[in-house]
Amino acid sequence: MKADLDRFMEADGIDAIVILPHENEDPYRTYLANGAHFGGMVVKKRGEQPVLIANGMEVDEAAKSGLTVYSWEDFGLGELLREHKDDRDGAMAEWFRRIFEKTGVQGSITIYGVGDINAAYRTILLLTEHLGEQITIVPAKIRNNIFNKAYETKDTDEIVRLRDVARRTSAVMRATREWISTHRAAGEVVVTAEAAPLTIGDVKRYVRMQLFAQGLEDPEGMIFAQGRDAAVPHSKGEDDQPLTLGQTIVFDLFPREPGGYFHDMTRTWCIGHAPDEVQADFDAVLEVYQRSAEMCKVGVVTSTVQRMVCEFFEEKGHPTVLNTPGTSEGYVHSLAHGLGLNVHEAPYFPNYSEDYRLQKGSVFTLEPGLYYPDKGYGIRIEDTVFLNESGALETLTDCPYDLVIELNG
Amino acid sequence: MKADLDRFMEADGIDAIVILPHENEDPYRTYLANGAHFGGMVVKKRGEQPVLIANGMEVDEAAKSGLTVYSWEDFGLGELLREHKDDRDGAMAEWFRRIFEKTGVQGSITIYGVGDINAAYRTILLLTEHLGEQITIVPAKIRNNIFNKAYETKDTDEIVRLRDVARRTSAVMRATREWISTHRAAGEVVVTAEAAPLTIGDVKRYVRMQLFAQGLEDPEGMIFAQGRDAAVPHSKGEDDQPLTLGQTIVFDLFPREPGGYFHDMTRTWCIGHAPDEVQADFDAVLEVYQRSAEMCKVGVVTSTVQRMVCEFFEEKGHPTVLNTPGTSEGYVHSLAHGLGLNVHEAPYFPNYSEDYRLQKGSVFTLEPGLYYPDKGYGIRIEDTVFLNESGALETLTDCPYDLVIELNG
Repeated sequence: MKADLDRFMEADGIDAIVILPHENEDPYRTYLANGAHFGGMVVKKRGEQPVLIANGMEVDEAAKSGLTVYSWEDFGLGELLREHKDDRDGAMAEWFRRIFEKTGVQGSITIYGVGDINAAYRTILLLTEHLGEQITIVPAKIRNNIFNKAYETKDTDEIVRLRDVARRTSAVMRATREWISTHRAAGEVVVTAEAAPLTIGDVKRYVRMQLFAQGLEDPEGMIFAQGRDAAVPHSKGEDDQPLTLGQTIVFDLFPREPGGYFHDMTRTWCIGHAPDEVQADFDAVLEVYQRSAEMCKVGVVTSTVQRMVCEFFEEKGHPTVLNTPGTSEGYVHSLAHGLGLNVHEAPYFPNYSEDYRLQKGSVFTLEPGLYYPDKGYGIRIEDTVFLNESGALETLTDCPYDLVIELNG
Repeated sequence: MKADLDRFMEADGIDAIVILPHENEDPYRTYLANGAHFGGMVVKKRGEQPVLIANGMEVDEAAKSGLTVYSWEDFGLGELLREHKDDRDGAMAEWFRRIFEKTGVQGSITIYGVGDINAAYRTILLLTEHLGEQITIVPAKIRNNIFNKAYETKDTDEIVRLRDVARRTSAVMRATREWISTHRAAGEVVVTAEAAPLTIGDVKRYVRMQLFAQGLEDPEGMIFAQGRDAAVPHSKGEDDQPLTLGQTIVFDLFPREPGGYFHDMTRTWCIGHAPDEVQADFDAVLEVYQRSAEMCKVGVVTSTVQRMVCEFFEEKGHPTVLNTPGTSEGYVHSLAHGLGLNVHEAPYFPNYSEDYRLQKGSVFTLEPGLYYPDKGYGIRIEDTVFLNESGALETLTDCPYDLVIELNG
């Protein structure tokens, strides 16, 4: 959790974190700025609260963080750009020098942010060239960097937010299931009261309305994929397809509160009836979902859970990423990922490596699945779960798992 | 436009562009991938079509580009991670080596993307260390990098998309104006038929419904700010404020088609009546909007238009960023910016520098404004305009400029 950042900085010998100014949505900045949204900089020295430096027009927004806020002009940006009008690099170097002097940044610094990679690289070279006597820029470890480690557990305030977005997302999923069941079939397809085919596009519009009513946003786009598309985990589904009886539908919903915390859940549905082979594979996915949930205890290395799932599926004859790397049939991805301000963050569940160990306060998905593109079906079940203060695993998701949706229309 | 990229690469001595793989929305990747959405890599050698390298689950999405697509596993990613399980860097270096060999990438390469800055910096160091004999990584120029230069003009296909999103955005703005006018006043505030105050939150819900109906998304959040908030250009407005007669409302709307092109427009409204001082400043903003539109011809250096606007306002006694850098009263920002897959992109309109010159096919905003936080009002007028094939300036925005909204409810 965020309170651990100083300890992780110390362990890695980092004196200060710097988030460069940029316009993009940036979970690192949102995290350090207590949820305030602005396009500016953050500097955080080890053992001290973050300090924000905002465009003058965004000082009010930045101040919602409750932290110290300076404006760009407190360091004379406009004047510097005028003085250095043919040397923007020189202006920027002097601007950073003034900011680092005022905020006491020196020593080993690490630069984070989600923004323009090329501009950031150029800025890093600029800082190294002009301020190399005061600062050394260190790249993070590729795994277990300080933010990843902080993200691995959530504090009480974050759990409140995650529970709330879970409740709202679950309500949307349940409402969608119920709404579909109010329709009727005509031949092999689902139709409306007016006998028009009910399409994936219609369902997605309904879901977006429900998200809207719940005050959620959907920045990454949901998955509502049927048949062969359901067997391609990142296919989002084709709007013009009518819902068809007996085909699997993978509905993966991962919205967030505006600019804040995500939820992530998946259900697999068959409308009217399910073929025997699909039902059998669904039962296997649900069983390994439950087994993986039972294994997730404080102190467990995440890769052991992923490998258990692979071995479970392989015993039933399904290829998996453990012994068939790159397979596009069977179990083709990893079991889970943490989530918070990012839809995917630590802890991860790799096939190997001991990098991630479950802790009290860990919030993560569990999402086993089986995929058979050539047979035209895919199955995935996903809840977001939480290791609570007693070390017990709770699910934050609230929605039945049942495969078959009966039509009552 | 995109067809110019090879020429700009040649001028800068760049042999290949590399977009690193990452999950974020990335306008550079979307641009090179002809609008296809996936989380993988792009490599583009000078004089050749881009080549996409996608996670196996996203190969179908990437293929919508019409370009050559490889999967990560075509370069053995899973096997490499297994072989190098204690040396992820070694695995990644070998993976990049295979990709660059297959696609013929060597020489001077430049790395673009919108993603995790720290991870990208680490990858750049890794490539430099392991592949330094084949490639040299060059940072872009801070202004006028190859993408900025390409973005400065739009091709025919892009103009079609920009016109379409302009039409839909304008319809939302007009509908909102009309909807507000169907209300009535009670004392100084606007109320609904049920006599409840009509709040900014109510209006934003109405606008979001209209955006939804038009199939637009609003990833950056609109501005609907009243009174003092209208005088802080990046304030988004407070949901619980009732609409109040005689106060200025700045409504800045900048949605996009899903994952695609943006529109950007602003209107300033006073409900019922406008104070004389506000009307006079509004007239000045509208006049300088028209003057700036008249100045925008092919070949004009953008900073000359920005300086004209500053001088116009200064003659009328308003402070501006030209001679009062960092001012938060008067004219406090720059006149305009290009837009396309980014809501802000080249050409920019700085106070100084000759970096940007208007061209046929340039698409940009014009958005003069005046801001007086202490007097409790702000004014901005913004259209998105286009220098067409004949060199004439067309506005893509279609909405009346009128300040006062009369209530008819």
